[in-house]
Amino acid sequence: MNGRAARVMDQCRQIAQMSEEPGRITRRFLTPPMRDVHALLRTRMEALDMSVHIDAAGNLHGLWSPTNAPRLILGSHIDTVPDAGAFDGVLGVLMAMEWVQIAQELNLPLPMEVIAFSEEEGVRFGVPFIGSRAVAGRFDPALLALKDAQGLTMEQVIRDFGLDPGKVADAAISAAIRGFVEIHIEQGPVLESQNLSLAAVTAISGQTRMTLEFRGQANHAGTTPMTLRRDALATAAEWIATVETLARQTQDLVATVGKMEVEPNAGNVVPGMARVSLDVRHVHDSTRVGAATSLLESAEAIANRRGLQLEVKHQLDQPAVPMDERLTAFLAEAMEAAGLPPKRMPSGAGHDAMVMAAKMPATMLFLRSPGGISHHPAEAVREQELVAALEIAGSFLRRIASEHNF
Amino acid sequence: MNGRAARVMDQCRQIAQMSEEPGRITRRFLTPPMRDVHALLRTRMEALDMSVHIDAAGNLHGLWSPTNAPRLILGSHIDTVPDAGAFDGVLGVLMAMEWVQIAQELNLPLPMEVIAFSEEEGVRFGVPFIGSRAVAGRFDPALLALKDAQGLTMEQVIRDFGLDPGKVADAAISAAIRGFVEIHIEQGPVLESQNLSLAAVTAISGQTRMTLEFRGQANHAGTTPMTLRRDALATAAEWIATVETLARQTQDLVATVGKMEVEPNAGNVVPGMARVSLDVRHVHDSTRVGAATSLLESAEAIANRRGLQLEVKHQLDQPAVPMDERLTAFLAEAMEAAGLPPKRMPSGAGHDAMVMAAKMPATMLFLRSPGGISHHPAEAVREQELVAALEIAGSFLRRIASEHNF
Repeated sequence: MNGRAARVMDQCRQIAQMSEEPGRITRRFLTPPMRDVHALLRTRMEALDMSVHIDAAGNLHGLWSPTNAPRLILGSHIDTVPDAGAFDGVLGVLMAMEWVQIAQELNLPLPMEVIAFSEEEGVRFGVPFIGSRAVAGRFDPALLALKDAQGLTMEQVIRDFGLDPGKVADAAISAAIRGFVEIHIEQGPVLESQNLSLAAVTAISGQTRMTLEFRGQANHAGTTPMTLRRDALATAAEWIATVETLARQTQDLVATVGKMEVEPNAGNVVPGMARVSLDVRHVHDSTRVGAATSLLESAEAIANRRGLQLEVKHQLDQPAVPMDERLTAFLAEAMEAAGLPPKRMPSGAGHDAMVMAAKMPATMLFLRSPGGISHHPAEAVREQELVAALEIAGSFLRRIASEHNF
Repeated sequence: MNGRAARVMDQCRQIAQMSEEPGRITRRFLTPPMRDVHALLRTRMEALDMSVHIDAAGNLHGLWSPTNAPRLILGSHIDTVPDAGAFDGVLGVLMAMEWVQIAQELNLPLPMEVIAFSEEEGVRFGVPFIGSRAVAGRFDPALLALKDAQGLTMEQVIRDFGLDPGKVADAAISAAIRGFVEIHIEQGPVLESQNLSLAAVTAISGQTRMTLEFRGQANHAGTTPMTLRRDALATAAEWIATVETLARQTQDLVATVGKMEVEPNAGNVVPGMARVSLDVRHVHDSTRVGAATSLLESAEAIANRRGLQLEVKHQLDQPAVPMDERLTAFLAEAMEAAGLPPKRMPSGAGHDAMVMAAKMPATMLFLRSPGGISHHPAEAVREQELVAALEIAGSFLRRIASEHNF
């Protein structure tokens, strides 16, 4: 196996052992295993002659400064969802350190900072991107009052970790920056379906999330003729078909009904209530908003025709975040230089790069996810993709180092 | 208000207070409030000069024997579902006593037995018709080993009530019988939709129940293109539409998907599993079985086309039970004699009459259910229907008394 790839894989496996739960990977914001992750990463950073510090939001930073020029930031997150895989987030931090080592070996005059973001998944406090919010200067101090499942506030959790919650604002980066690159597994099946190793990310899709509650009338399943029913589940089912049809007909749109709750949810009762989630994503906000509007109109029409009430709760309307065109083009060019197709694709999932993009040019490099699987113990990455992502590092970093227009 | 109707209504309200739970009507098999119900019914029976006994299955019997001729049995059940209404079951027992009183006032030479069945709903032990099974000689002693939610066996529950579980077989009726009539609220919207008070029941529909589990692949809702999904909920939704369409196209068929469970059931995850119930009912077994077979074929075809696995669990295949034609005709004739349309209809729900029909001629009289509501605190019955059911009693009972061919 390629030595660098083997090291990354080995470190991912080591970090996977650092968990809140025996036998499962679960590592939430500033929980005890985070100290072990920090120790491992710090050792690696110090071996690369990087200067290391932990900011008040729990982000671990390693800086390598061969010059005083603006720096390139590389990074991803080190928290996980419950019962996670070994690569989501962590892989990007470990690959970042390989890229630093490659730049060092090439004697590139490029200051590079690696950030291991403390939180991205939103598990502990229900709010994602705590780490990158702080670095991007987008951390709202009101978040400190949020409580976790044990009733601990974020402020207390930060203090208990030995950090000063009063200084989270100081985590906002003030140095001159060339840009931010996040290496991450795709978490989807697109690269695998096209038999590709890497993609440069063009944008983070915008997202609409809402809950629709169809309210009809619960009735006895044996005594209520079909013509006298107001069946909430049958109504929701008809609407779900329209969601799927519209999404299939609209280029690059994804629309998902992932959650369904039925009341009373008994085999012999006509459902009186069906509550469903809707998640719509697209890189173009107008397409996304248009689709969501159309689906709401369908829901209204279907409910009205069947004599049901419809109640809609809007939960999220998050615009798409374009990645920096120049950084993304540099990644694609480096892929071509390494003999790889310069695949570009949007990210349907949110990432720290989305938050960082508010403050600096940002892009992402996706590595193929076997089976499209993530947020699951079966999550994997193949050596082939690690090798590819290592192969493009030299030309990409050389290009960044030679650019002075950031 | 009509005096008899007022008495029935008042007694229903009194019995509604006899509950396991304060503020809600919940009265399971042989729970403490059953003693209060027995006491109230015994008082009423003794006032009618009936001889009263409780059999080993907890059924309360009152017998009025003006002659030694074969008797007519009237009755219904006195247990309830949790958070029930005040009329399901109980109304039929109280109306039966009014019919006895009417027969007495008319000096009809007709022995009549009123049975308050101890259990019909199947709540406590997951098995319905405990009371009528015992009376019909259909009680399987293996049932005594069933445990309730507290871990008590049926045997223990019977013993704790002061009865002898070894004598349940003796509850099987051995006297000569003319037939069985159960008066019951319709529990459906048919009579209301046709603005009718009463119906004579022609048959209890047969029932098919099964569970279908569609298994696809859980995927990230943002990163999985529509073309690469195997969405279990969207698949189930497509099938639910075919269930509804087939039922609407088939005369008198009801088919219901009442229960749905989705995994992982998160708004941002394409569902990997959807488990749904199917309940199909019809008075003609061939129609019911044909519909169930066709719906299974649809499910297979839809799952195959979408690349999902389908697993089916058959839970119930219960044939239709025709009511006795002569008894049903006598009810209809009595309705005509009282100036009411002789409405006949099947029952989509199971009733004690279905079990009793295995041993003797049996039929049912349905009373309109406002809003079709039952198994709910809003369950109601109007005075008008009580009056109608009292008005037909005289001619019906006279007819039965004059018949000797049972």
